[in-house]
Order: sequence, then C-alpha cells, then structure tokens
Amino acid sequence: MDFKSYLASRTALVDRALDRFLPKAKTKPSTLHVAMRYSLFAGGKRLRPALVLATAEACGGTTDAALPHAAAVECIHTYSLIHDDLPCMDDDDLRRGRPTNHKVYGEGVAVLAGDALLTAAFEMLAQAQGTPRYSVAALVTELAHASGSRWLIGGQVADLEGEGRPLSGEELKYIHRCKTAALLTASIRLGAMSADATPKGLTAVTDFGQSLGLAFQIIDDILDVTQTTEMLGKTAGKDVKATKATYPAILGLEKSRAEAYRLTKRAHTALKPLGNKAARLREFADYLLARDY
Amino acid sequence: MDFKSYLASRTALVDRALDRFLPKAKTKPSTLHVAMRYSLFAGGKRLRPALVLATAEACGGTTDAALPHAAAVECIHTYSLIHDDLPCMDDDDLRRGRPTNHKVYGEGVAVLAGDALLTAAFEMLAQAQGTPRYSVAALVTELAHASGSRWLIGGQVADLEGEGRPLSGEELKYIHRCKTAALLTASIRLGAMSADATPKGLTAVTDFGQSLGLAFQIIDDILDVTQTTEMLGKTAGKDVKATKATYPAILGLEKSRAEAYRLTKRAHTALKPLGNKAARLREFADYLLARDY
Repeated sequence: MDFKSYLASRTALVDRALDRFLPKAKTKPSTLHVAMRYSLFAGGKRLRPALVLATAEACGGTTDAALPHAAAVECIHTYSLIHDDLPCMDDDDLRRGRPTNHKVYGEGVAVLAGDALLTAAFEMLAQAQGTPRYSVAALVTELAHASGSRWLIGGQVADLEGEGRPLSGEELKYIHRCKTAALLTASIRLGAMSADATPKGLTAVTDFGQSLGLAFQIIDDILDVTQTTEMLGKTAGKDVKATKATYPAILGLEKSRAEAYRLTKRAHTALKPLGNKAARLREFADYLLARDY
Repeated sequence: MDFKSYLASRTALVDRALDRFLPKAKTKPSTLHVAMRYSLFAGGKRLRPALVLATAEACGGTTDAALPHAAAVECIHTYSLIHDDLPCMDDDDLRRGRPTNHKVYGEGVAVLAGDALLTAAFEMLAQAQGTPRYSVAALVTELAHASGSRWLIGGQVADLEGEGRPLSGEELKYIHRCKTAALLTASIRLGAMSADATPKGLTAVTDFGQSLGLAFQIIDDILDVTQTTEMLGKTAGKDVKATKATYPAILGLEKSRAEAYRLTKRAHTALKPLGNKAARLREFADYLLARDY
C-alpha cells in the first residue's frame, strides 16, 4: 500500500472510532453534540491520530489497542482549534474549509463544545487498556501534561502575548514547541505506550517526535505564506497580517525550508533503533515535509 | 470538633493539596498560572472537595488517599465558573467577591485558564492510587462523564438555550441535575471510590449525593433571591434579571424551602447503611440546608 492509501485507511479507522466513542448528535442537549461533531468531522487530516497508530505499529503493537489514544489526541487537537479560533483569541472565520464553530453555533456554545471535546478526550483515553509498562494513569498523565498549562495551552498564551510585537527566534521556537511539537510528541509517545514499547523504543520515538514537531510547524508557517486560503482550508496569510512571528519572517523562506529538511533528517536518524518496523513512520516524516496544505 | 471547624480544617487541607499539585505562579507562561491561581484561590468554600473527604471518611478511607480526587473536582468546579462568567455566557463581573477572571486577565486568558484547570483536574486525578475495586481509569471515567457533554457542560448549554423564555419545572430540574447535582454526586462517589467502598456503600452515597445535589441548587436559587450581592460574593438577583427559571420563581419561596428540606431528609435516609461513620456527611447535609451564602 502506498503512503497516501495507508493514511486514508488510518483516517477511516479513526473516524469510525471517534463516531463510536462520542455521544450521538441527537444526545441531549443536541445543540452541543451537533456542535462537537461539526468540528470533529470537518475533514481534518487526522495527522495526530494517524501518528499514534503508525507509532504503535513501529513498536510492535496493534491498531485496535491504540484507537482510544488516537481518538483522544484528535479530540484535544480539535478542541484547541475551536478555542483558538474564538474572537477573543485568533478571531478566525474559516477552519478546514468551513465556517468556524462559533460562526455557526455562537461563541457560548463554541466554548462549551471545546470544553466537552477536551473532557471527552480523557473519557476516551480511560477506555484504553493499560499495558505491563504503562498504566492508564500514565497515559492520562502524558496527555494532560502535553495539552496542559505548561505546553499546548501555555503556548497559546505565549502566542497571544506575542501578537503585534517582534518575537525573537527563541521565543518563536518556544511557542512552536508548546503549541505543536508537544502534542505531536505526546501522540507518538501514546502510540508507543499502547504497544508497551521498551524504554529504548520510547526514547527513540520521543526524539523522532521532537524533531518532527518542529519541522511540522516550520512547514505550516511556510504554507501560510505561500499557499492560498482555498488550498489550506483556513485563512492564509493571517500570521503575516497579525504580524505574528513566523519562521519565514525571521529566517526567510529558503533557510526555513532548509531547517525543515534538516529536522526531518534528524527525525529519520532517531528511528534507527526500531529498524524496518518503523517504515511507515519514516514515510510519515517525508510526507509531512513534502505536503502542500 | 464542631462542623464549622471541621469544614475549615478540610478547606486548609484542600488548599495545600491544590497548591502542591498546581504549577507555581512563576511557571512559564506566568500570566496563565497566575490567572489559574487567581480563580482557584479566591476564597471558594471548597464544598465539593470537602464532600470528597467526608465521604472517604464515611466509607472507611483516609483523607490522604482522597486528596487527588478532592483537588481534581475543585479544579473542574473552578474552570466551569470561569467559563460560565464569560461575556458570551452569563456575562458576570463578580465571583467569590472579586472581579471575574476575564475582567482581570482578559477573555482570551480566561478561556485558557479554564481549559488549563480542566486539564489539570485529570492530571491530578491520575496521581491517585487505584484501589482493588476502582482503578484510576474508573476514576477518570467517573469525573469525565459527570463533567462532560451529557452533564455539567450539557447543563450549561441547556441553561444558555433557556435564557429569556419561561422554563417548565421539568426543564429546570434537568438543568440543575446537570449543572449542580452531577458534579456533587461525582465528588461523593470519588470519595467513596478512594476508600474502596463496597458496592452497597457506593450505592448509598450515590443516593445521598443525588438528593443533596438537588437540595443544594434549590437553596442556591433561594439565596439568589433573598440575599445581597455582598453576602453572596457574586451578583445577587441575576437569575431574576436574566428571567432565568428558578425554584422560587416556579414554586414560590415557601414551597421551595419545603422541597429543599424534604430532599435533605431523603439524603439522611440514604446514609442509613453506613451507620455512625457517616456522621460528618449528615452534618454536611444539614449545614448546606441552613447556609445563608
């Protein structure tokens, strides 16, 4: 199976799991469940849950065992997008090619739909089976830490605080580590934990995740500058408009591309201890480097 | 020890646990951690975590074992207040006698401080020790379910949707069950679970919690009508102003008081199987019935 077909098959698995784990749209109060599903099933690329599944595979685990972890990280990702898009944050009207949650359901329901997806993430993760090395408590700690005040949410606060003033390269890296790399790395670690990875295996994929996470955000920044709104499914050029610090703004386009390439190579190197089992993870890194949306 | 001294000693224990579990105020990004602590240490009555500890005691457990559960429910309660007070929800300026979180830190940070407290709740709960009957996964499921889209958050959505139109008694009961009773009952159940309660014990405190939760909200509604803003530490009379349905509005003051009394008696009856160990829980129910703020 080529990588694009592989990714499509993972997306289908994740979509079915999310549909199964989440309350039906008609569950009372229906407005809320409809709003949660509107953003969750908006055609997201499912990169984070697919990384969970690919890492489980690379560590000798099964897809079935990793589905609660995969569904949970996608709920966290989607909630963070709903809240980031709010008028009091990035104030965006378009996400995944459709009006943002608050544009359709109003701000109050959008805040609550985000809250509910965040809460549902932990309810889903609690359905996972622990393994000899990693209890459910360890899984919850991993996800809560990466998506909590020190990382995912902390990065959004730093991003808010940095708006409209020039940021240093260090500040920019800090925001990206928090907002993007932390949840990508946690996705990868949760996949490894679902497979009861050895300490050596967990270290390898953690290194992989850290390089990949940073490369991912650089490419996001580049696409924001070079692609159209239609291609991205979200407002293009908004980082520039908001005078947000981005890699292209600080390093220029060429050096940013070179940096993304260097980090992707480093990600490959990190996977060496896992051998052939990590083939899909390697393809994943190359795919993310080459993506155009 | 009389009940007020008992409650004060529990509050002190919970405050110390929260301070220990939560990142320090200077942890990066400091704005966020300061905002989280502003609302968490705003002089809340700590009723929910105190119920966790009193129930643990009633079921033969220890306070120490129940502290992560107690801290977690207080984080959930505080996050829900921060989000409910936002301009896009109840739009309130005053909470626990101080300006609301968004009034001090802005709406963006307030949304994120709420998100971070919600996430921290699960990180804290994952620090709990499971017991033979109740794993950490069971604890996380309990808290996520009660504070999720079907209950706590669902109730807030129903509350938003009901604003400005007359609600039936049934609708009102539904909102209260979701917004208040569910988290109170979960607090009580988590306390029992920390003590490895027998199935019979868990059923008894669950019945207790359901009656108590409804009584609690009726008394809240009564206080909103009869007390001043200064006494409550939050804007008084706002339910009436918002033409929100309340028990006094639907049943009248006297019948509402009688209903709260009847539910408190029923809560007492539910505790019979626990015998003398539940003495503090009985005092708790009486205290909540008689409170004037």
